[in-house]
Amino acid sequence: MNPSRPTVVLRPQPQSAARIFTPQTRAVLEERYEVVDLEHDDDPRRLEEALPRAFAVIGQPDLDRDRLSRAPQLRALCNVEGNFFPNVDYEACHDQGIHVLGCGPAYAQAVAEHALGLALDIARGISREDRAFRRGEESYVAAGNTDSVLLRGSTVGLLGFGNLGRALHRLLVPFDATVRVYDPWLPDAHLREHGVLPASLEEVLRHSRFVFVLATVTADSEHLLAGPQFDLLAPGVRLVLVSRAAVVDYDELLPRVARGDFLAAVDVWPEEPVPADHPARGIDGLVFSGHRAGGIPAAFEQIGQMVLDDLDLIGRGLPPVRMQVAARELVGRYRNRPVT
Amino acid sequence: MNPSRPTVVLRPQPQSAARIFTPQTRAVLEERYEVVDLEHDDDPRRLEEALPRAFAVIGQPDLDRDRLSRAPQLRALCNVEGNFFPNVDYEACHDQGIHVLGCGPAYAQAVAEHALGLALDIARGISREDRAFRRGEESYVAAGNTDSVLLRGSTVGLLGFGNLGRALHRLLVPFDATVRVYDPWLPDAHLREHGVLPASLEEVLRHSRFVFVLATVTADSEHLLAGPQFDLLAPGVRLVLVSRAAVVDYDELLPRVARGDFLAAVDVWPEEPVPADHPARGIDGLVFSGHRAGGIPAAFEQIGQMVLDDLDLIGRGLPPVRMQVAARELVGRYRNRPVT
Amino acid sequence: MNPSRPTVVLRPQPQSAARIFTPQTRAVLEERYEVVDLEHDDDPRRLEEALPRAFAVIGQPDLDRDRLSRAPQLRALCNVEGNFFPNVDYEACHDQGIHVLGCGPAYAQAVAEHALGLALDIARGISREDRAFRRGEESYVAAGNTDSVLLRGSTVGLLGFGNLGRALHRLLVPFDATVRVYDPWLPDAHLREHGVLPASLEEVLRHSRFVFVLATVTADSEHLLAGPQFDLLAPGVRLVLVSRAAVVDYDELLPRVARGDFLAAVDVWPEEPVPADHPARGIDGLVFSGHRAGGIPAAFEQIGQMVLDDLDLIGRGLPPVRMQVAARELVGRYRNRPVT
Amino acid sequence: MNPSRPTVVLRPQPQSAARIFTPQTRAVLEERYEVVDLEHDDDPRRLEEALPRAFAVIGQPDLDRDRLSRAPQLRALCNVEGNFFPNVDYEACHDQGIHVLGCGPAYAQAVAEHALGLALDIARGISREDRAFRRGEESYVAAGNTDSVLLRGSTVGLLGFGNLGRALHRLLVPFDATVRVYDPWLPDAHLREHGVLPASLEEVLRHSRFVFVLATVTADSEHLLAGPQFDLLAPGVRLVLVSRAAVVDYDELLPRVARGDFLAAVDVWPEEPVPADHPARGIDGLVFSGHRAGGIPAAFEQIGQMVLDDLDLIGRGLPPVRMQVAARELVGRYRNRPVT
Repeated sequence: MNPSRPTVVLRPQPQSAARIFTPQTRAVLEERYEVVDLEHDDDPRRLEEALPRAFAVIGQPDLDRDRLSRAPQLRALCNVEGNFFPNVDYEACHDQGIHVLGCGPAYAQAVAEHALGLALDIARGISREDRAFRRGEESYVAAGNTDSVLLRGSTVGLLGFGNLGRALHRLLVPFDATVRVYDPWLPDAHLREHGVLPASLEEVLRHSRFVFVLATVTADSEHLLAGPQFDLLAPGVRLVLVSRAAVVDYDELLPRVARGDFLAAVDVWPEEPVPADHPARGIDGLVFSGHRAGGIPAAFEQIGQMVLDDLDLIGRGLPPVRMQVAARELVGRYRNRPVT
Repeated sequence: MNPSRPTVVLRPQPQSAARIFTPQTRAVLEERYEVVDLEHDDDPRRLEEALPRAFAVIGQPDLDRDRLSRAPQLRALCNVEGNFFPNVDYEACHDQGIHVLGCGPAYAQAVAEHALGLALDIARGISREDRAFRRGEESYVAAGNTDSVLLRGSTVGLLGFGNLGRALHRLLVPFDATVRVYDPWLPDAHLREHGVLPASLEEVLRHSRFVFVLATVTADSEHLLAGPQFDLLAPGVRLVLVSRAAVVDYDELLPRVARGDFLAAVDVWPEEPVPADHPARGIDGLVFSGHRAGGIPAAFEQIGQMVLDDLDLIGRGLPPVRMQVAARELVGRYRNRPVT
Repeated sequence: MNPSRPTVVLRPQPQSAARIFTPQTRAVLEERYEVVDLEHDDDPRRLEEALPRAFAVIGQPDLDRDRLSRAPQLRALCNVEGNFFPNVDYEACHDQGIHVLGCGPAYAQAVAEHALGLALDIARGISREDRAFRRGEESYVAAGNTDSVLLRGSTVGLLGFGNLGRALHRLLVPFDATVRVYDPWLPDAHLREHGVLPASLEEVLRHSRFVFVLATVTADSEHLLAGPQFDLLAPGVRLVLVSRAAVVDYDELLPRVARGDFLAAVDVWPEEPVPADHPARGIDGLVFSGHRAGGIPAAFEQIGQMVLDDLDLIGRGLPPVRMQVAARELVGRYRNRPVT
Repeated sequence: MNPSRPTVVLRPQPQSAARIFTPQTRAVLEERYEVVDLEHDDDPRRLEEALPRAFAVIGQPDLDRDRLSRAPQLRALCNVEGNFFPNVDYEACHDQGIHVLGCGPAYAQAVAEHALGLALDIARGISREDRAFRRGEESYVAAGNTDSVLLRGSTVGLLGFGNLGRALHRLLVPFDATVRVYDPWLPDAHLREHGVLPASLEEVLRHSRFVFVLATVTADSEHLLAGPQFDLLAPGVRLVLVSRAAVVDYDELLPRVARGDFLAAVDVWPEEPVPADHPARGIDGLVFSGHRAGGIPAAFEQIGQMVLDDLDLIGRGLPPVRMQVAARELVGRYRNRPVT
């Protein structure tokens, strides 16, 4: 142990260190820091032993206010999974001036590309016709295109304009669509500056041919889309759902897709894995995806690089710029597990 | 018949007038022009009778030099299908100052969106995982993403940079990819002005993770991609084929995809419909599409609007701007049917 | 003389060969072609002697139908100056299948950058405050900015959407302005596809804070902007004039700028040079420019490269793509000198 | 006084409330909040009296740790001028969880447009030729353009990539330039994600035809550009200086511009106003601007709107998104006035 190197606690669960660090970035981490690796040995005594000299924590071990008080040099808590679990006292972190950093931006491009891929699939029947082809029942040219639509010049609605919404919007720009956004956390002027139209939930649903559900779950957004909302959609709308299942009432969604009211592509499910005998599996107008939008190798590896970059900045007395600074006001709202 | 209206011959086969003209655009056509409708009555005498006063032809009836010489007022021949058949003497058209106009631009956006959708599908396994889900064998999160790749920041190769290549490139801009283009008909400076890198066929194939085949067929481009070319591709490349089947040697392509050398999405086939028992139908790494990239309702309807717009300009003594002026040098190269 | 090389007649006046060809591009020209250089020896007998074997003409020597008939191998007439003079029989060129090519695109970017620079100057008083500073009368911070306006989010009107309009619009995109275009030669759908709003002349003038005059002169566009049109402008409009002086009635323009109705930047003048004692020279709200928008070294050198690229394509049996194919319908409209 | 409305202290000096609030936004402010207006009555007792119930402060009155401790409900300190003066204890603000918000983003677009205008001026000699015209010594067409250069396809260097750099880069995108950035506070990956090339100061200076100085002043950046740095510039470079005078050694800059080594446009000066007899006033290759880049009416009015938007968010328990959260690490570095 080189006492001159700052100490970093690595406890990435439920993320895995091997996924976010390549051999190269892991080597840089080890070279720059004394790494207290708790990934495979989660003995609380080792954490306690490291806290007094810890400069940063990668992951989210149990850190209540009392424990945090024993980490006077702690400057950063790097969440490398995506969800802020309530086993950390984030208020205490803010009180101590510890940066609470999230890795959401690392997933945003992957989610945006997947969402666009799903939208183009249901715009053009790509997987449906692929299946037909495999059965020997494919259509050719115009015959298979009766319900195909262009994204260009269309109306697009985004529910949520955080990392995901902004990353997706960037990809949508050359499609010259009219993009309406519903995001109650953002002022109209902020949305207009980003080149989208602020709108109410009702306006978005009524006036969009493509609807992307990109909202995070809070008490306010649970079942944001239920029966009355789905009834606002025009016939033939294409709905892409890639953020959180709890935002949508699936008991209202699935029957409507099954009877052809609109087409949908769904990446998140209220229960994962979906029960083997779930009736949704037979729906023709649905494209199925198993929570695969964000978790691709390129996204995971970006997390490791972001951690390295931001710890370096913080060590130099500069603010982090690559991970997302978790807002004190919001980090508590995301809680979905009890504090240990 | 109102003698003051210019005469337009309508003989759209193999296109259909009902597909390219909505009731609204058809009404405008009828209002502005005396329409000699030969769609359902192809008696050559009616064509002959109309030629002396014809201002424009929509479609491609048999028009040899002799016949064209009897159409001294003819200003435009509007091809509304996409292929220039050799039953028209295009040299004679050019000699007479008749605009030979193609509808390729009407399809370009539809093809570009389909090509991007196919690319994102094989980048992320969208239809493959949809099929797995329907079988109850889906993977979740990272498990289904081991071979998923980002388009952003990737290397992209375009074979051909005509209407299709330009329309696709426009959609690719926000992905910040390095885009190499092989197009022997275009000078390097032209490509650089469009923000892409001119490259040889070999360079494109060696250095691209995504390869889009967008070339038209001429004597030069037949089997442009055969065994030696496929062997230049890096393992795991994603190949999207949306232009013309003749550009590719399928006997070399399909076995390579079958054994997992790379992934492919194929919209055009040497024989359409593909034989029912064709062995390709079982290949897992292939996404199948039945020549559906361009022929969607929005594209067809745009053709009708483009015809109206350009006939109006020509009637006002202005050059056409919406359809594509067929280059004298190229129109002959596309021939694929004997002159009648 | 290598008889195997095609013959190119070089008679660039009023352009100069040394301006459009660098030593490098001139060397390529000489290597590929037998160059009959008439720049400094304009003896008609040398032209006559070369015509029977001429593949291309660079420049615009006197070419009436009779002469053209003695040039059966002529494939291209490359105008390297910018104006199509009437000493060439363009109808005869088209009849013979000779490409009539213009170099307008080579100037477009230079003009667009100059026009944007002029617009930002009058938006922010750049040259006005520079003059004040030199006199020791400058203002600081807000004091000098009372009439400064943002281009971002503004309303912009373009009169004309040819090469210049498209090049300028490309630069305006990140300013998120509402761009209205008046161009009677272009259908609404064409303009909408380019992301601008088609509008009448009156709408453009009434609703734009920035107005760019980019129209060419024809019988129709002479004095397109006269008293009644200027009266439609809102107080404080910024007017940029970079195309042709004849489009504007200066006797109506200048007094309005002098009395502060609006600000203007003017690059073209009815009489050039402007008379030394012209009263306009004292107007404070005017930015003066001496027909300098397009003629910069980079533009001239691009012309030489474009000529080389297109002659190469034509020689290979391909259509030109870099110079602008002069429309049969338009080339005659630009005439401004009598046929010799 | 409506006790149900939150209390906002307004003490905008050296900014003026009338400049940042329109009658409309001022009315909204008064309606939503109890405004304690200290703009024209700066009696410390009124501030003291308001602190215990203050929800937000607009401006920067003297707020040491002691005073802040008497403001337990304070949630936001909105700096509406642009510089963080050291009469506030920012550490104490962070310790109390008070948002320290800056208005830098409100100026960014104005500065970017001015910087681009200045760059195009010195690229094309706009103000120089305007002056010549007024003297009756103007040049026409190519004669006045011998040193004119295109921005398109050029090499551009940005020193600093904060609000100003990003806003300017956005405007530069359609110019297809190679953009190198020197910013020691930002990791390479962050810059690459924004589509620019990370580079050392030396690389930027050696390889850029256009150099924009956009850096803030800290101990590290003072005289970042002095003699040795200027000597790295290629002859004929165009230098635009719009951020802070202290970044540049004017005694080295001005003589080089005077003798024609390169061209420059300068908006900030070590001493403002510049002494009347300052020799720089006679330099031909300089464009003079009196600290006018950011302070335009549209920027000022945006500040008022941003304050309203963010106070509303904070009041709703959400994080601010329009003003810039001042990083704890940086806010102290900007100090340029002694603590009162």
